[in-house]
Amino acid sequence: MSNVNAALADIDQSLDGIIERLFSFLRIPSISADPAYAGDCEKAAQWICNELSAIGCEASVRPTPGRPMVVGHYTPPDATAKTPHVLFYGHYDVQPADPLELWHTPPFEPVRKKNKKGVDQLVGRGTADDKGQLMTFVEAARAMIKVDGKLPIKATFLIEGEEESGSPSLVPFLEANRKELACDAAFVCDSNMWDVKTPAITTRLRGLAHEEVTVTGPSIDLHSGMFGGPAMNPIRALSGMIAAIHDKKGKVTIPGFYVGVSELPAPVKKQWRSLKFSDRKFLGDVGLKTAAGEKGYSVLEQIWSRPTAEVNGIWGGYTGAGTKTVIPSQAHAKFTFRLVGKQDPKKVIKAFQTFARKQMKGDAKITFSGKGGGSPASTIDEKNPFIRKSAAALKAEFRRETVMMGGGGSIPIVRYFKDILGMDSVLVGFGLDDDAIHSPNEKYNVSSFHHGMRSWVRIIAELGK
Amino acid sequence: MSNVNAALADIDQSLDGIIERLFSFLRIPSISADPAYAGDCEKAAQWICNELSAIGCEASVRPTPGRPMVVGHYTPPDATAKTPHVLFYGHYDVQPADPLELWHTPPFEPVRKKNKKGVDQLVGRGTADDKGQLMTFVEAARAMIKVDGKLPIKATFLIEGEEESGSPSLVPFLEANRKELACDAAFVCDSNMWDVKTPAITTRLRGLAHEEVTVTGPSIDLHSGMFGGPAMNPIRALSGMIAAIHDKKGKVTIPGFYVGVSELPAPVKKQWRSLKFSDRKFLGDVGLKTAAGEKGYSVLEQIWSRPTAEVNGIWGGYTGAGTKTVIPSQAHAKFTFRLVGKQDPKKVIKAFQTFARKQMKGDAKITFSGKGGGSPASTIDEKNPFIRKSAAALKAEFRRETVMMGGGGSIPIVRYFKDILGMDSVLVGFGLDDDAIHSPNEKYNVSSFHHGMRSWVRIIAELGK
Repeated sequence: MSNVNAALADIDQSLDGIIERLFSFLRIPSISADPAYAGDCEKAAQWICNELSAIGCEASVRPTPGRPMVVGHYTPPDATAKTPHVLFYGHYDVQPADPLELWHTPPFEPVRKKNKKGVDQLVGRGTADDKGQLMTFVEAARAMIKVDGKLPIKATFLIEGEEESGSPSLVPFLEANRKELACDAAFVCDSNMWDVKTPAITTRLRGLAHEEVTVTGPSIDLHSGMFGGPAMNPIRALSGMIAAIHDKKGKVTIPGFYVGVSELPAPVKKQWRSLKFSDRKFLGDVGLKTAAGEKGYSVLEQIWSRPTAEVNGIWGGYTGAGTKTVIPSQAHAKFTFRLVGKQDPKKVIKAFQTFARKQMKGDAKITFSGKGGGSPASTIDEKNPFIRKSAAALKAEFRRETVMMGGGGSIPIVRYFKDILGMDSVLVGFGLDDDAIHSPNEKYNVSSFHHGMRSWVRIIAELGK
Repeated sequence: MSNVNAALADIDQSLDGIIERLFSFLRIPSISADPAYAGDCEKAAQWICNELSAIGCEASVRPTPGRPMVVGHYTPPDATAKTPHVLFYGHYDVQPADPLELWHTPPFEPVRKKNKKGVDQLVGRGTADDKGQLMTFVEAARAMIKVDGKLPIKATFLIEGEEESGSPSLVPFLEANRKELACDAAFVCDSNMWDVKTPAITTRLRGLAHEEVTVTGPSIDLHSGMFGGPAMNPIRALSGMIAAIHDKKGKVTIPGFYVGVSELPAPVKKQWRSLKFSDRKFLGDVGLKTAAGEKGYSVLEQIWSRPTAEVNGIWGGYTGAGTKTVIPSQAHAKFTFRLVGKQDPKKVIKAFQTFARKQMKGDAKITFSGKGGGSPASTIDEKNPFIRKSAAALKAEFRRETVMMGGGGSIPIVRYFKDILGMDSVLVGFGLDDDAIHSPNEKYNVSSFHHGMRSWVRIIAELGK
């Protein structure tokens, strides 16, 4: 049994030193997108590798064709086959800092200061995304080992250096090191809390399927005077098909589309409805007033738990200045489908194709790119033990119910961990919406950092029970 | 009373000489589009001016900022206020001749020769479009004046030199010479017969209205993961509007759209249905099988007598390679409407705007280019006396009923004559679909030329009765 209170007290007492340690990490400008900073990325990798070694990991910097990976393995002296084994993921690379002139303090000279409202913050590139976040679990582990002599679990640390530049080396690295990296579950610390007082775990990320279509009418572009009337216009046929995808209630009409979609569990639904989420502000910020998704679902439910059929691009006929009386031979459109639950991207694309073909009338012919594809949603059951334990630990730390959030988009690492390493991901992070990640004056609240470390102590202890 | 038979006999006997005269006109390369041939256009204008003078017209070459106009006035010695006065229109300019290498004989060295099927033809640029055609009425007038000493009508000849290059000087010229050029009716000789044995008058040309729309959803492009579901997609809204324009029977659903549209008179409908028009070939030539226009109307009726609503171009969102998960802020489309009968272009555009606005739901907003415009259909009642007399004369010449054709597109000169000079146009021509106008090896059948001249003798005699 871990001595949680002692570890928490140690973190509280050591906070200034811990922040100073983080600052030495933040001073390394490890921008992965810019080759000029490749050396700094090496330095940052070595820095975190040293930290992992310092707490007792077998750690190494692992070269890739791009920026190196850092892998550390921690095994407690009393480990058995039953000891839980989890992977902690973070990334040491950061976004470029420009436009530099908008920073109030230099991006790679981190400072701790209070903002106008008196909020204690760490300011600098990487404070929130992701150096500050990943150090929350490293410092938690350090404190526990300090007071207990060990962690109650086996831990593997995977710290990437290309997250901000598309992770080109990640999949090959995971594939080449499957056996070494596969654990019972992964903890990814690169996400946000619900708000400054409320912890959150992201348990639902929508998947994506995509397809492109071409509708062909006449074999050549026609003059609308000579042929207008009898000639089938492919833009009209394509528009008709697009218009038929949704019914009046915003539901997708494609037969089979909802196979694998489950209704939200009642407790989650209840929790989401209790959140102080402002539909009005969310929509108003982008010039909208009315939720356009499926009727009967709140905005959060529409984004976090419902699938969509979306046309992302359309083109056909004459698109230049003025008028051209053409009936085009072809019209085109690009579609994506956001997936939830167990929707199968291949089946969704097939169902869409069948539907789209049936919508064609007369001479309209539809063809598909043949490049359709996608990936399923990443959903973890809220009853999953890693989720349950993390939620309980977070609640103990924040004294608030942990929000089981959804995410409208997909996070590639979650998919890769599932597909390549066969493990679910638990997304626990302490960022806030106003952290300005990817922007000038990136910050991380001291309370996020502090609560974050304390939360990991509680989570790790919980996992080890 | 004209001595029709004597005039016809004179034409028959003089045919070789008449063809030789036409050849001297055809040898002038009066290409209006190419400034290098401006001098040749002047020559051609002077040539036709001389011919008009030779038959007794008060004729002159009239300068314009571009190629000159030729105007000739003929007044019979016994003219009264009741003598009919008609305008004959043709154009002396021709299309460029390239690609030269595809001509079997030089384009400006006209020849008379039989084709492989033994059809006697005049070959060269301008034989059909329009020098050969316009000479049919000039030669007819010459023959009548020769045998009768006069024409039974007043005639104004307007021979343009910019028809093949957009007629930039035409409208200003008509406006500046309204009083001089306004007649009881215009005869335009620049169109086709129904087929080699069947004469035709084009009595219906569709008009055109055009408008461009922009549908706006969110104020900025959105990420479909973050916003997909609640965010209104303007492509979907635009597609829905386009899909709603037609009902299942191909009828336009825009309220008020059909105001001014009359059903085809029964005799015309009957005549069109009796024509050996192959829907299958017409559609098959452009890769189609099924007439897509209003159900209950034949292909000819759809093109010649029914209005359309057509989307000529559409664009929005991402149209490059691959996938972009965007919900665009805007989508755009261009529309044209082919008009018939008394449809008013301004009212049609207004009706469309009202309809389109009503189709927008939720946050979708539609705006219009403000550049919408157009021109009404040109329709002459088949009972108009100039039409009736011409049809009777053509029937007498060809011994076949004259087909009252429609045209799917508009012919600007018809609109200008109506709008500026207040007169209807009677479109009588002797071209055939295989004349290869605007192409290499343009030809004009000798039978077209010969029957054409004889037809004008009969028409002019009929008008003078």
